[in-house]
Amino acid sequence: MIVVMKIGATQDQLNHVIKTADELGFSPHIIEGKERNVIGLVGVAGQRDKMNVIGDMPGVDNIVPITKAYKLASREIKPEPSIIDVCGVKFGGENIPVIAGPCSVEGEAAVIKVAELIKAAGATMLRGGAFKPRTSPYSFQGLEEEGLRILAKAREVTGLPVVTEVTNPKYVDMVYKYADMFQVGARNVQNFALLSELGKTDKPVLLKRGMSTTIEEYLTASEYILSEGNKNVILC
Amino acid sequence: MIVVMKIGATQDQLNHVIKTADELGFSPHIIEGKERNVIGLVGVAGQRDKMNVIGDMPGVDNIVPITKAYKLASREIKPEPSIIDVCGVKFGGENIPVIAGPCSVEGEAAVIKVAELIKAAGATMLRGGAFKPRTSPYSFQGLEEEGLRILAKAREVTGLPVVTEVTNPKYVDMVYKYADMFQVGARNVQNFALLSELGKTDKPVLLKRGMSTTIEEYLTASEYILSEGNKNVILC
Amino acid sequence: MIVVMKIGATQDQLNHVIKTADELGFSPHIIEGKERNVIGLVGVAGQRDKMNVIGDMPGVDNIVPITKAYKLASREIKPEPSIIDVCGVKFGGENIPVIAGPCSVEGEAAVIKVAELIKAAGATMLRGGAFKPRTSPYSFQGLEEEGLRILAKAREVTGLPVVTEVTNPKYVDMVYKYADMFQVGARNVQNFALLSELGKTDKPVLLKRGMSTTIEEYLTASEYILSEGNKNVILC
Amino acid sequence: MIVVMKIGATQDQLNHVIKTADELGFSPHIIEGKERNVIGLVGVAGQRDKMNVIGDMPGVDNIVPITKAYKLASREIKPEPSIIDVCGVKFGGENIPVIAGPCSVEGEAAVIKVAELIKAAGATMLRGGAFKPRTSPYSFQGLEEEGLRILAKAREVTGLPVVTEVTNPKYVDMVYKYADMFQVGARNVQNFALLSELGKTDKPVLLKRGMSTTIEEYLTASEYILSEGNKNVILC
Repeated sequence: MIVVMKIGATQDQLNHVIKTADELGFSPHIIEGKERNVIGLVGVAGQRDKMNVIGDMPGVDNIVPITKAYKLASREIKPEPSIIDVCGVKFGGENIPVIAGPCSVEGEAAVIKVAELIKAAGATMLRGGAFKPRTSPYSFQGLEEEGLRILAKAREVTGLPVVTEVTNPKYVDMVYKYADMFQVGARNVQNFALLSELGKTDKPVLLKRGMSTTIEEYLTASEYILSEGNKNVILC
Repeated sequence: MIVVMKIGATQDQLNHVIKTADELGFSPHIIEGKERNVIGLVGVAGQRDKMNVIGDMPGVDNIVPITKAYKLASREIKPEPSIIDVCGVKFGGENIPVIAGPCSVEGEAAVIKVAELIKAAGATMLRGGAFKPRTSPYSFQGLEEEGLRILAKAREVTGLPVVTEVTNPKYVDMVYKYADMFQVGARNVQNFALLSELGKTDKPVLLKRGMSTTIEEYLTASEYILSEGNKNVILC
Repeated sequence: MIVVMKIGATQDQLNHVIKTADELGFSPHIIEGKERNVIGLVGVAGQRDKMNVIGDMPGVDNIVPITKAYKLASREIKPEPSIIDVCGVKFGGENIPVIAGPCSVEGEAAVIKVAELIKAAGATMLRGGAFKPRTSPYSFQGLEEEGLRILAKAREVTGLPVVTEVTNPKYVDMVYKYADMFQVGARNVQNFALLSELGKTDKPVLLKRGMSTTIEEYLTASEYILSEGNKNVILC
Repeated sequence: MIVVMKIGATQDQLNHVIKTADELGFSPHIIEGKERNVIGLVGVAGQRDKMNVIGDMPGVDNIVPITKAYKLASREIKPEPSIIDVCGVKFGGENIPVIAGPCSVEGEAAVIKVAELIKAAGATMLRGGAFKPRTSPYSFQGLEEEGLRILAKAREVTGLPVVTEVTNPKYVDMVYKYADMFQVGARNVQNFALLSELGKTDKPVLLKRGMSTTIEEYLTASEYILSEGNKNVILC
């Protein structure tokens, strides 16, 4: 990490920062600038909690982390593109798979009909909501397990793999039994309890970007899944 | 609800909308405008799903709901201000209570010391995180139940009631045992599974507004708690 | 427009609104609902200022405009797609024209070289900034008229028409002399003084959408250009 | 500035960056990290254009500027709080001045009446719009110079200094004649042509923060005014 000292910070303040950094296990390197001094701290990664200690010291203007907040999601660890295979449908390769289906699952006949139509039109994966995260509690909330059963039935009829949204950590096991891929909606992109639970499974996760989510927040959200052991994350 | 017809919609399209609205249980009232026609549909509230049916019909420009998406959160149902009493601390009345405390609970001695200091400074409620929804999975995630125990201990020593964040529906019961008020963080403002679970309890909920959350989304999120029976929601 | 009365508004309040609307030139139509009354006001369009008068009256919950804030930008006035022809390059038709070029114009030889390369690569229009709206006043602000001259020179050499940004109403005439199309950047999407000035010219305007600009704001911004007489607006 | 090399960057790439930085006038300092190398470049401030050259070189992950994009707006240059005196009303000191008045200036009698009322209520400055940046071109755009004249009249009657919005660089001189302080609205926070023009005057500027404007963008926008010589900027 880089420690940027204030213009006009005293030599005592500089010495104090260096001593503290040293005690925390960093190797400090001072760069004397024209306006101010900057200290490079070399050490093991993931020291974000220690950064705050130094960031609050007198004479320090701000702290710049060098290590990214995400690791497994980074190209630095895995430079080649990831290809995620969901029952033969490949995400991340040359072709762009099309997922289609109704917003919410409302009845078996309709879903099967839709599945047949989208397959005929070229889609290779079926979507449909059994749990609907609706803005209002008075809107239809989904058929829940019955909806999942209908999706599985449509897969049986058409051969299309199924992706469906999960909104509550306690339903991860239930959705796992029926779906081929989990969907995490935009509003749950930082629902870390849900993400961690999904990280413990071995099925792919389609993670949607939230409203105003920055790229760093988005990749770090995916890191919650990856760091639990599930490497099959698709950013949507 | 109001149905706004397109400029140039045909008489047949208008008739079709009226017939469909009638079948759905609405009483339609046509208002002939200079540029276009508008239809007022009178009926029972909460017909948002039926709105979509009509909104998709040929000749319809758009649909304007009159009934708000939230009810219990509305001044129309309860015009007088709500005063929520948390162990004697009143939110919504003449005085503004100050809640203070550390970001995260890290140790018993420190939290008790902080609690004593904030009490001396005039705060009437203690906060501190036992479950920390951190952007990165590699950051400190909180002491969990041990953290809750420390907060309860600080309450015992100082008499200050305690509010703490809950991030996972499955920990609602555990947090309930120790805290006097639940906190829902900005990132969970539309975590409906969590909100519904909190609505089933009888302890107050401090609901923080999310990044870019509109007023309607925010009030409707609070409706998830209210509609389950818990009337003690504090917007923060 | 639609006037939504409050639940519990009195008959007197309703009568007062109707009387006022009548005096303002509207024909009121009352729709008696189950929870509240709604009044449809028929009248000439563009009465947004009158709306405020009624919206502030006792017993009124809110006002819903039916007429859109934009007219000329609407499909209702002109249902068929617009095709804007910029020196033979057509925007809005079957083909998608590609505009390419350097961020800022920095020198004649480089711009001509770039223009030749992008033409060889299939681009049909040249872009480059002579006026650069930079976040910092200490960053390079562009070559101004000399930059415009260089762009015109590159057009002479390659035959590619030129689009370039204009940021100040007082330079509209100068940019007009050199460019084939004006560009309005994201940060100026609601710079109404600039938009009005461009509406008085006869050259196409490429209007970029601003950060967080809603669709209605964006279309209404384009209306500033259209309503001055310039029908050649391209949304980018 | 700090140059962060990629994990796995070669020694050749590192050497090339150092050589280039040296040629650009920087003194490079290498910090060898555990995962990657980082280079501190010491040199004169305001080298943002040179940063791009280095940021694009092979092996470079990213560039971190140390010098802030704004200078005059920084506490580093002027640590003490600024107090701006507008005809005896002080902004930035112990007291918080209240500015009040109508959204738009619509008539002399009304504005004078309002000015008297707000003065009696304790306001110390009068506001009112003579140029109204309205979302729609069909909304009332303000009385322009006649509105400014009315504001000046209200000042004459009440003694309250006047602040009013200016939206077009070409009206800066006109507004200067009547107002005691310029207002720049949220939508014009990055209208750099307007800000620069205001920086050439000697009257205070009330700069409103735009929708989604970051703190750095906001302070750097104020720098456009400050760097032209006008030190009287009030952030609103």
